Amino acid sequence: MAERLIVIGGDAAGMSAAATARRLRPDLEIVALEKGGYTSYSACGIPYVIGGEVASLDELVARTPQQFRTEHRIDVRMRHEAVAIDLDARRVTVRDHAHERDITLGFDLLHLATGARPIRPDLPGIDAGFVHGVQTLDDAGHLLAHAKAARCSNVVVVGGGYIGLELAEAFVRWGAVVTVVDRGAHVMASLDADMAVRVEEAMRRHGIAVRTGLEVTGFEPGRVLTAEGPIVADLVVLGIGVAPNAALAADAGLALGAGGAIRVDRRQAAGAEGVYAAGDCAETFHRITQRPVYLALGTIANKTGRVAGINLGGGYATFGGAVGTAVTRVCSTEVARTGLNEREAAAAGFRVVSATVEATNRAGYLPGAHPMTVKMLAEVGSGRLLGCQIVGQDGAGKRIDVVATAITAGMTAEDLVGLDLAYAPPVSPLWDPVQVAARRLLSAS
Amino acid sequence: MAERLIVIGGDAAGMSAAATARRLRPDLEIVALEKGGYTSYSACGIPYVIGGEVASLDELVARTPQQFRTEHRIDVRMRHEAVAIDLDARRVTVRDHAHERDITLGFDLLHLATGARPIRPDLPGIDAGFVHGVQTLDDAGHLLAHAKAARCSNVVVVGGGYIGLELAEAFVRWGAVVTVVDRGAHVMASLDADMAVRVEEAMRRHGIAVRTGLEVTGFEPGRVLTAEGPIVADLVVLGIGVAPNAALAADAGLALGAGGAIRVDRRQAAGAEGVYAAGDCAETFHRITQRPVYLALGTIANKTGRVAGINLGGGYATFGGAVGTAVTRVCSTEVARTGLNEREAAAAGFRVVSATVEATNRAGYLPGAHPMTVKMLAEVGSGRLLGCQIVGQDGAGKRIDVVATAITAGMTAEDLVGLDLAYAPPVSPLWDPVQVAARRLLSAS
Repeated sequence: MAERLIVIGGDAAGMSAAATARRLRPDLEIVALEKGGYTSYSACGIPYVIGGEVASLDELVARTPQQFRTEHRIDVRMRHEAVAIDLDARRVTVRDHAHERDITLGFDLLHLATGARPIRPDLPGIDAGFVHGVQTLDDAGHLLAHAKAARCSNVVVVGGGYIGLELAEAFVRWGAVVTVVDRGAHVMASLDADMAVRVEEAMRRHGIAVRTGLEVTGFEPGRVLTAEGPIVADLVVLGIGVAPNAALAADAGLALGAGGAIRVDRRQAAGAEGVYAAGDCAETFHRITQRPVYLALGTIANKTGRVAGINLGGGYATFGGAVGTAVTRVCSTEVARTGLNEREAAAAGFRVVSATVEATNRAGYLPGAHPMTVKMLAEVGSGRLLGCQIVGQDGAGKRIDVVATAITAGMTAEDLVGLDLAYAPPVSPLWDPVQVAARRLLSAS
Repeated sequence: MAERLIVIGGDAAGMSAAATARRLRPDLEIVALEKGGYTSYSACGIPYVIGGEVASLDELVARTPQQFRTEHRIDVRMRHEAVAIDLDARRVTVRDHAHERDITLGFDLLHLATGARPIRPDLPGIDAGFVHGVQTLDDAGHLLAHAKAARCSNVVVVGGGYIGLELAEAFVRWGAVVTVVDRGAHVMASLDADMAVRVEEAMRRHGIAVRTGLEVTGFEPGRVLTAEGPIVADLVVLGIGVAPNAALAADAGLALGAGGAIRVDRRQAAGAEGVYAAGDCAETFHRITQRPVYLALGTIANKTGRVAGINLGGGYATFGGAVGTAVTRVCSTEVARTGLNEREAAAAGFRVVSATVEATNRAGYLPGAHPMTVKMLAEVGSGRLLGCQIVGQDGAGKRIDVVATAITAGMTAEDLVGLDLAYAPPVSPLWDPVQVAARRLLSAS
């Protein structure tokens, strides 16, 4: 009888593992369980459906269940939710929501890709219908249906992180009055304060009300309650981060690690024979601090899913680690970061020197040359690059990739200055902005 | 008496060295000799003045002679051409064109930054007034004056390299009928043929006539003569590359190296005590092949000028080497490359495996997602990255920088797949196109 792999979760980390394992082991029986109605979709694309740039949620689906069935011979079962795992008996209890019945499936190999859910703070009124978290396409469907039915015109986004900013942009495009409330001193806690201020300035230029240092205390019909009084709202979106869906694993006896996510090793093995985990439900590994960390990002879900799939398929792969790279766009402003910010660097025990420069995305004498701000951090003494933050416009954000690559390679600021980066006036100034920042760092240290 | 540094050449490699040396040695007397009428200008910006995107050549000047005099205490002498160097007597003979006299200047330190000149093939009619080479702002001034006076409407660009493509775009914007003639089988000899074909297709889409495999045999008033008959032309621009201005150095007894350029070591020292050279007049060092190479590029001129300046100023710096990165834009098409192409890799003794993929510059479901083609080369066996070529639109070209950085770090295709690169739907697909190419490379090898 063929060995059976059960994959729990039909999004990136689940299906990339399933497809990779299939390629390596044509003999394997692969069953994928998805509790919702979609497989392999771009949750990151949800704001662009809300904002009207993309016509429907269906366009965010990279591969349908049927494609996985016919092209990869994966037995994808939709609206099937794993509700219990027995590691000793090697079986999963599954709720088939369509037929309202439970079934039991045995497994030889198990892959956990149960994802994450938006954090819902325990506040009065949090369960009201106009308060939405957005993580899955099903969530997004509910949000869109509500927004359209109620013709929402006053939207409050709680939380000024990546998803908060993207949702703010979406509702600006939608035509609503948008307020972003953040209890921190600044939005974008992953940036240093001096860079976050530039994001706030950009948000205000784009017509978004930014209320920082403000605690939300509850929700009442038509308004969000705060310490400074109510804010009118016919729709609220939560953007305060996500928590891993790790209860299923924990109940089965698997250990949890960073951020309450499933503890995994570098091969994505979850601590029991033949059991792996990847994506937003699992902790990951930070290449700079060499410590476990919880980062719920689509890029990491795909990479760790691929690593798990290779190992599930009998190969050998390890995840090299994240360096904390992320980018977002709010209206025309791009915000990017990689490595450690000042707070993170201090917490990891690094002494840092930083430099901040203004540069342009293309030669300054060309029309369409937009300013960008680049802040770069290096270790005192060694000059080793530790982090970078960029706020700018067209072409600013993806410049972070060079620094992410340089950090991964253990390069110093001097090494970055010496890199042979591409120059032509329409696409870059002669010294790329990240090199301008590295040069400033050299003269600062 | 103060030691004197004489810098020959007032563009990037000369003035970056002069300014860097000044910062390190406030006591030095620095004299900079420039035979033309401009200092520190962006020669790469000339096509954008011709094309009308930039209003005048003056806007391409990063720093004027007067700024160098007042801000850096550099004695900049314009229209002063060094005509002989006596290394034993430590003096330079200088032609002062403004006053039509020769003067002699002694030096303790000497920096050669004499640049390059467009190659002018020995063909009948090559010296006709309507045949232009474009290297300096003075050249560009003559070209523009001619083009405006004659209301040129039929332009032939000889040579389909970077400068040829940029000039072709410029004259398309100008409103001329533009023909690019290249004697090679394809334009862009620095790309592999399969990628160069994509550039030719893009050029034709942009309305440029592309005539490859065609030898120019001469120039007559109003036409360019070729083996396949004449082409109507009221203006001809030469874009067949440049040759180093190294005769002054050779006459002084300095050795020449790759491409007939001044031989230098990694500190840019030119083989005589206290004599350095940098920029387009000097050979440079290729990081992959570990061999000298001649590359006339503004980025390298600035970097090697900075290295020479540190050494002239009593510090210690070496140039880490080029990896052959370049980018250009022809109309809306971006063309980039780094590392070695197939021919170069074979010549250097590498066995290569390659992969070519189609990807998009942003999430495929978003409007404005443009296709790009990425070709990647790695060494057979080790998987070490050797080169990459990209042809695409908005945002395609600068993606080469990640590969240039990865190559510099000695990364493999697997390392590149594992890099934590930035993703958000408006700026990138989930797997960056260079990672898609690296993944294809993994499954191909």
